[in-house]
Order: sequence, then C-alpha cells, then structure tokens
Amino acid sequence: MSSLNISDTELSRLSEKAVALVLEYWASLEKRPAYPATSGMQTLEQFSQPWAEDGMGGAVLDGFPAIAAHARPSTGRFFGYVVGSGEPVGALGEFLAAALNQNVGAWRSAPSAATIEQTVVGWLAEAVGCAGFSGSLCGGGSTANLMALAQAREAKRPANETGASPCIVYTSEQAHMSIAKAVALLGIGRANLRFIPTDDGLRMRSDALEATIAADRKAGRSPIAIVATAGTVNNGAIDPLPDIADIARAHDLWLHVDGAYGGLAALAAPERFRGLDRADSLSLDAHKWLYQPIECGCLLYRDRQVARRTFSHAGDYVKVLAEDPSETFAFFDESLELTRRFRALKLWMSLQYHGRRAFRETIAQDLHHARLLAQLIEAEPELELLAPVSLSAVCFRHRGKDNTAVLKRVNARGRVYLSNATIDGQFALRACFVNHRTTEDDVRTIVSEVIAAAGEVNR
Amino acid sequence: MSSLNISDTELSRLSEKAVALVLEYWASLEKRPAYPATSGMQTLEQFSQPWAEDGMGGAVLDGFPAIAAHARPSTGRFFGYVVGSGEPVGALGEFLAAALNQNVGAWRSAPSAATIEQTVVGWLAEAVGCAGFSGSLCGGGSTANLMALAQAREAKRPANETGASPCIVYTSEQAHMSIAKAVALLGIGRANLRFIPTDDGLRMRSDALEATIAADRKAGRSPIAIVATAGTVNNGAIDPLPDIADIARAHDLWLHVDGAYGGLAALAAPERFRGLDRADSLSLDAHKWLYQPIECGCLLYRDRQVARRTFSHAGDYVKVLAEDPSETFAFFDESLELTRRFRALKLWMSLQYHGRRAFRETIAQDLHHARLLAQLIEAEPELELLAPVSLSAVCFRHRGKDNTAVLKRVNARGRVYLSNATIDGQFALRACFVNHRTTEDDVRTIVSEVIAAAGEVNR
Repeated sequence: MSSLNISDTELSRLSEKAVALVLEYWASLEKRPAYPATSGMQTLEQFSQPWAEDGMGGAVLDGFPAIAAHARPSTGRFFGYVVGSGEPVGALGEFLAAALNQNVGAWRSAPSAATIEQTVVGWLAEAVGCAGFSGSLCGGGSTANLMALAQAREAKRPANETGASPCIVYTSEQAHMSIAKAVALLGIGRANLRFIPTDDGLRMRSDALEATIAADRKAGRSPIAIVATAGTVNNGAIDPLPDIADIARAHDLWLHVDGAYGGLAALAAPERFRGLDRADSLSLDAHKWLYQPIECGCLLYRDRQVARRTFSHAGDYVKVLAEDPSETFAFFDESLELTRRFRALKLWMSLQYHGRRAFRETIAQDLHHARLLAQLIEAEPELELLAPVSLSAVCFRHRGKDNTAVLKRVNARGRVYLSNATIDGQFALRACFVNHRTTEDDVRTIVSEVIAAAGEVNR
Repeated sequence: MSSLNISDTELSRLSEKAVALVLEYWASLEKRPAYPATSGMQTLEQFSQPWAEDGMGGAVLDGFPAIAAHARPSTGRFFGYVVGSGEPVGALGEFLAAALNQNVGAWRSAPSAATIEQTVVGWLAEAVGCAGFSGSLCGGGSTANLMALAQAREAKRPANETGASPCIVYTSEQAHMSIAKAVALLGIGRANLRFIPTDDGLRMRSDALEATIAADRKAGRSPIAIVATAGTVNNGAIDPLPDIADIARAHDLWLHVDGAYGGLAALAAPERFRGLDRADSLSLDAHKWLYQPIECGCLLYRDRQVARRTFSHAGDYVKVLAEDPSETFAFFDESLELTRRFRALKLWMSLQYHGRRAFRETIAQDLHHARLLAQLIEAEPELELLAPVSLSAVCFRHRGKDNTAVLKRVNARGRVYLSNATIDGQFALRACFVNHRTTEDDVRTIVSEVIAAAGEVNR
C-alpha cells in the first residue's frame, strides 16, 4: 500500500473543507478589493518554503485564505487586460475533470472525453458562424496562434520544400504580441512579419495590405499567410474580414483570424463578424468571452488534413489498434500536445447548465457596459475617449493629469482595476468588459474612481 | 444582473452534489474494469448533442456517471503508456485553482500564484539534483521539449543570424516523438534531426553521437543541440548523461534532457541520474511520476537570460509599471503562453499534504513493481522479456502466440490494461508503473491475465 493512499473518510473530510473554502471565497468576491494590497516581498515571505520530508496533511488547506488574499479576484470591478470571470459551474467542471484524470490525446485514451471535446468544439464553431470547422481546445490564444501559423506554413510551403525564398506573414500594427512570438518560434524570422498600418478605427488597412503583398511578390519573396484580428486587445477593433478574405483568396494565402478576445462575441453580435467563416483558421478563448476558468483556448480550422500533415509524428507506442475512424481519432495528430487534459468538461457543464441564451445575453450586456462607459467618458469634461469602441475595450485618458500616475492611484485605491494601452503613441487608461459579475454601478464607479484618483495626483 | 449569476444557495447545492459524485467515483476505482467496454459509436451517441438555447441547470451533473463509465479509470491496474494516477489532493488543488481563476502570466496578474509556481519549480529542481535552475510549469513534455529546443536555437544560433548553414539536432533512435515534432515546428527541418543508434540497453551510443557530430561539422553543417532521454517510453532507458554532457561541452552544444517520464525518479534513485545537473534544460512531467492529475509539465533551465531572449515579445498592454524585480517578473517572458493557469496549486497542496518521503517511497515502490514483473516474466516459460528494465517500463512477449491478438484479448478482458511497443522490430506487450494505487497483487495479475488471454487466442 503506497504512503500516498488516503482513506475514503479522510478524502470526504478534505473535499468538504475544500468546498467550504471555495463557497466562502465566491461569496466574498464583491467585498474584496479589485486588486490585493500586496508586494513582491510579502508574497515571497508568505509562499517560499522548502518541501518538507513529512506531510502536513489536511492543514495544507488552511493556507487557502492567504493565497486568496494575495490573488487577483475575479470581481466584477476588475477591468484589466482581457480576463474572464471564472464561471463557477465551469470551476466545478475542472474539479470533475481532475478527478477523472483523462488524457484526451486520443479517443482510445479517453473515449468519453475525446467525444465531448469534439462536441463542444462543434458548438463553438457553430456559435461563431463556422459550422463544419474542425478543431481542438488548447491553453489559449498564444498556442492557438502558433498552431495556426504552423498549419499555414505546412499548407503554403511544405516542410520538404527547401532552399526557397523567405516566407512572409502579414498582420496589423495592432496585432497581439503572440503573433510575433509564433513567427519567431516557427523559425520564419521576425524580419518576415509585416505590420500593416491601421485606419482611424485601428483596423488593418486592406489597401496597404494589398500593396505590401505586391511589393513582396515583386521582390521574389513568398507571402504565405495573413493574420487578421477580430477584436484587438487595445480597442476591440475588428479588421475588415471580407476585404482581407478577398485578398487572401486572390493571392492564395492562408487566412488566420485571431479572435482570442473578440471572436466569441459573434454569438451576440454576428453582424460585426461578417467574413469570419472565410478564415482557414480561427483562434477563440473561452476563458475570455465565455467566462470560463483559465485556461480554455480553441483553434478551429477548415481543413483537418493540413492539421494532420503539420502535427502527426506518432510513435509506435501510441499507435491505435482499431479500425473504426472514431476510435482511431487522435487530437495529438492535429495539435501540439500529446498528453492533453479534459478542458472540454467545463464547457460541457457550464454551457449546458446555463444554455446558449444566457451567454448571448451576458455578452450583449458586456457590449452595453462598454458603450455606457464611452458615453459617461464623453459626458465628463475631465476625460477623453482615445479610440472608437468596437467591442468591449475602452481606451481613454484624463485630460489634465499624468495618466501613469492616475492609473497607479486608481488601482491602489482598490475599488476598480484598470490596465493601460498605447494609442497613437499616447498612454491610455483601459477598461475591458468580459465579466458576468459586472453591473452598471460598477461601470459608473470607473468614472468616479478615475476622477477621484486624478484629484489625488499632483499635476 | 447577468443571467449567468447563480445564488450562493444553488452554488452550495451544486458543489455538494459534485463532491458526492467525485467521492463515489474515487471509491469505485478499484471495482472498475481497467478499460471501459465502449465503442466509437456508443460515445458518439451518448455525447453528441446541440447546445440548447435553454439551460438545463443542475441536471447537467446527472450526466457524470455516464462520462465516468466511458472513461479510462486511473485504477492501479491500468499499465498503458505513461499515465500517472491523479492523486486526489492534487485534484482538489485543481478545483481551488479554478475557483481562484488566476492568470499566472506574471506576478502582477497573480501575485500569490506566481510566487507559489516559482517555489514549487524550485522544489522540483532541487528534488532531481538541479537546485538553482529556473523554470516554469507547462502542459507537458511536448511543450517543454519544444520550448527547450527553441532556447537551444536562440543560444547557439540567434534568430538574427541568417543565411547560415543548417542547424543540426541529435537524439537517439528511442527518443520520444515530441522531439521530431518540435524540430519540425521550429522550422529546423526534419532532415536536420539525427537519430543516433542505441546500445543493448537501448541507450544512446556516445561513440556514434561523437562520430555523427564530427561528420556534420566536416560537411559544414552547424550542430546546435543534443537531446538525451532520461527514461525512454519503451523501456525507461537512461542515456549515458555524463558522456553526453562531455560531448556537448566539447562541441559547445546545448544539452537538453527529456526526463518527462523518468526524470522525477531521481527523487528515489538519484544514482541512476548522474550527470542530470549538467543539462542546459530538462523536461519533467509531474502528471506522470509525481502522480498529479493531468496536466502538469515542467521545463527547467540553467540560464534565465536565454529563456528571456527566446520568449520575450511583450506588448504595451502587459507592460509592468513596477520596479521591484519580483513584481516585474513575468512567466510569459520566459515561456510560450501568455495566459497561464494556476498549475502550481495542485503541486503545492499534494506535495505538502503527503511530504517528500511519501513520494520517494511510492516511486521506489513503482521501481520495485517493475523488477517484480520482470522476475515473474523470466520465471514463466511462455513469456519472454524483450528489453532490460531501467526504470518502470517492462517490454515482453508471449513466445507462442500472435502478440497483437494477445494484447487485444488482455485489454478486452478488462482486468489489466497494457499498451505496446516495438523492440528490435518486434511487437512487444508493455506495462508501465507510475501509479500509487498499484499493488503487488496487481503486478501478478498482469502475468496471469496474459497467460489466460493467450489461452483464448488461436495460434
């Protein structure tokens, strides 16, 4: 009998205690500051210790409140970055998934889990107007974008074609940093990523895109892919997808759409996402605008065969001894990871618990909150809106004060948390709404807190 | 108020129900078949349905027993692949982590979680004799190996050095498939991965490695990295690390050790892992030989600056406005992902609940189980051991029957589950021990089940 074994009674006691801690935490969320009062020194002191020879048993749970006290809470008043709200049914789904301990690398190693993942990926595809796309869940946008560009290269410049001209990838100046990271990792070379300028709405300029592709072709280089963004992190801008899709088709380029932040808003506002279904691949983050606990990314793609050519390197020890195609199916043949956790269970549970309407309505509410904040800013003489609000990210500034100082002060006050962006070279305060716990009162608090914080800042 | 909101009472009811289901599942594990009796058709029928407009509420939990019935259970009699046992305290840790919903991309976005991740990474490094290494947790060996080779390229052939000779990477014929996958994804080119032959113990031959490097240098190619394996998936072979480290140093090559399966056994058998501390980078999987729920990989590395040069592409919107270096610390500057989940909490809880001794003893017990199985096989005239047992993976065959048929029959009988390997071109039955629930009786059952299954198979 291993010394790791735990009796059923002790497991029951531990589980009850864990649930009590979590329920208390969830109930406390709206009473917590939007950001914890802590420092690097404090967390080091509190959470650095050696791994002891002897076990401490259930007392380890007593440390949970301190961990929570030094954590960013998913309150409705946290508006930094693009952070979803960690829907509790999804969190219970994570617990059940951990208990089942499935390796969803293939149907064979996790029959129910692999099937459920295929089902929920189908739901996401259908929800954003891309019914029929294949795909898989992954860690998040960075991994999804990396896998998409790997597929683009495989499709347009197969690995066995060597000594050719450099591959060129196009994206906008507002693209997410993960695109540059993916291009570097894939060995395409940072110099071969073109940043296309944007228009007044911070959307990729399709005329500039077309001209840049033409110049590269003329110079003997090999364009392979365009990465459009459906929801930039700065202001939620959606690149002109139909125009870009036309250009991609005309030049035989792979069209990847980075919809990690914005794509799932197509559930509530499909009219803003026309052309999405013309992508070859599409990144979505369910831990953003489907409110799921971190992490739950998704890559959708049109052609499963390209995914297989890109990712299939199976060794004998995972070869499947079956003939039924649903039983030989392996996610690891179409994606980066071999061991894969059961990310789909939280979606399966949370999405069915609430139903599709509740998600559509809550996304619509986030869009409404962003419009409301923009209106409040425009009505407030001390503040200035710095970019159009395309989805739910709002960039603005205080007209009279150093905005870096204002931001630090706002966050230190702890009622709301904002992050920052750079718009036309200018430091901007930024609030993003992807949180089902946010209320209209919380939105109004942003304005009053910024004004109050500015009052505390010397000019 | 969002339609996703749930009352505290309802959340409490749901959580209690989820816990009851999990406790029942854990208590049932040893009564379950080692593999579920299911088919692709059955799982499709059971788990394919559209996403409904209306929510079904708590009834979604009623589906859990069916999901579990069609899942691979983490029973002590599942010996396929390299699958850990999903330690329950770790599973509770996953629940708490999901409830906290931290983005451990940086200290700033998750102060306690980022600090705890640094602490547990330090525990792992120290436990395998690599104290002082930096690192981060990730999805698993595939991602860790990819990140390691990206660092190797950055260290030995920085991205801005273009037009040079091809980069060459060396590994053994027994290397994991993720090495070839990583080399292809990084754009190094599959043709530039050299598979070095192995000796009788299926370990990389250092004389052949040395000769191949010399030949490549002579031909004007640029060797950049050696990937040694500390625990091959087939038979747990550990490449001769001291010799390989000497060669890496002599030729100025990056030494990555893939210890995803075996590395953590250094906790119980450090004498088999001499030279591990000479690696530049090292992959470990805590969801394998630390029994944690899937997934929990780890990449350790000697030089944090190389990691930063490889992965730092930060955009303004995540720039940190602090001066304390522990507060400006960002995992996303040293690894692939930007949004990162709180993987460290399960380690923090499980490792401290049980203490270091319990893990060391349980790993020693797995090593003992493998030796016991090898002895039982050698004592059984119908069976033949096909490879030396270096750690806890045992490859063998039935002397008289078609072993593919025997394997199918063993698994269909449902008392134990084995997987397969290819040893010297021969189809092998394979059992791997990384499960704290396995008993000596379970080990004996492998032999009796193979004999019984062989009796049911026509010659």
